[in-house]
Amino acid sequence: MASQAKAAVNRAIKALLRRDDDLARRTKDDDCIIDQLEMEIDEAAIKLLAQAPALLDLRLITMAMKISHDLERVGDEATTISRRCLELSREPPLKQQLDLPTMAALALEMLKEALDAFVHRAPAKARSVIPKDEEVDALNKRLHGELAKHMAEEPQTITRCLNLMVVSKSLERIADHATNIAEEVVYLYEGQDIRHAGSKGNDQ
Amino acid sequence: MASQAKAAVNRAIKALLRRDDDLARRTKDDDCIIDQLEMEIDEAAIKLLAQAPALLDLRLITMAMKISHDLERVGDEATTISRRCLELSREPPLKQQLDLPTMAALALEMLKEALDAFVHRAPAKARSVIPKDEEVDALNKRLHGELAKHMAEEPQTITRCLNLMVVSKSLERIADHATNIAEEVVYLYEGQDIRHAGSKGNDQ
Repeated sequence: MASQAKAAVNRAIKALLRRDDDLARRTKDDDCIIDQLEMEIDEAAIKLLAQAPALLDLRLITMAMKISHDLERVGDEATTISRRCLELSREPPLKQQLDLPTMAALALEMLKEALDAFVHRAPAKARSVIPKDEEVDALNKRLHGELAKHMAEEPQTITRCLNLMVVSKSLERIADHATNIAEEVVYLYEGQDIRHAGSKGNDQ
Repeated sequence: MASQAKAAVNRAIKALLRRDDDLARRTKDDDCIIDQLEMEIDEAAIKLLAQAPALLDLRLITMAMKISHDLERVGDEATTISRRCLELSREPPLKQQLDLPTMAALALEMLKEALDAFVHRAPAKARSVIPKDEEVDALNKRLHGELAKHMAEEPQTITRCLNLMVVSKSLERIADHATNIAEEVVYLYEGQDIRHAGSKGNDQ
């Protein structure tokens, strides 16, 4: 499920940069695979919980359910990006979109590291993911400001600017999900609930 | 937790309409109470799961965890609305914001009905919540279109229009969370997973 979600984000961004409508459409259509995986994981988790597992396994199972939900949302964001991509490719590209690959690379790196931390039982690695969320927030905020300014200067670009704002916000949300996963991994292996302690909740 | 989340949305919208910065600030600050409740519910749920509950209780406990996560997100949306409210009250109001109370009332009604269905074990009532999500999506889409048009006609309103778009999108997301809760209630009492079958995922 994790590799499907990461691949979906990758494809959505690739489709945006290459103006590849086919790839955008396929990415959108494949989201149902990720949705299906979430339901299968939940079902398997409930079956496992019914076997009265030990406390650590119980935490593992419930955190796996939470992580799978975060991944499902990452897939939804890839769908959002793909939809915007189909709208954006109808008009000439704006230079502001050049900032998106940096944001995408950072968000995907956070996602990869949080999932590696889960698989390798490495809460310290998970902790190192969390501060990166601020970088993505800052990139999103800067791009949002630039796009708002550009809209005022060239009103004929408003639709494109709004679409790019949505893409940027989607990438910021993917980084939030990676942060959630990292916090869930810390809770799983250290027993400490560090959710809601940080700076998530930038809503630009 | 449900009444705190509903009250937060109510207060955020009231603050927006009355241009009441104090209320907006209090709503934002009180979000930590909802966050804290989510962590307490998760902890209690894991303790209950450790007691090897019967299958139906197991489903109840896991769905309660999911519902509490949706409510936590509803609280986050109330915070987003409150932040935008603080920005909006610095400039003259736009007439487009008159559509927001209708959307807010509909989203809050969905939330109330989904939670009633949970408490009263009424999956049929939960099912009746789901189609209303399309109405909120349609209202959000219409308002988004009107605001985009207004931006182009009067570029000096761009910042305000962007803030109103975020508020509208937040209300649309609250309706999505109510739909999630309704689907979780159907799964809990009917054993049928109806997530990802509907029309959620409008990303305007």
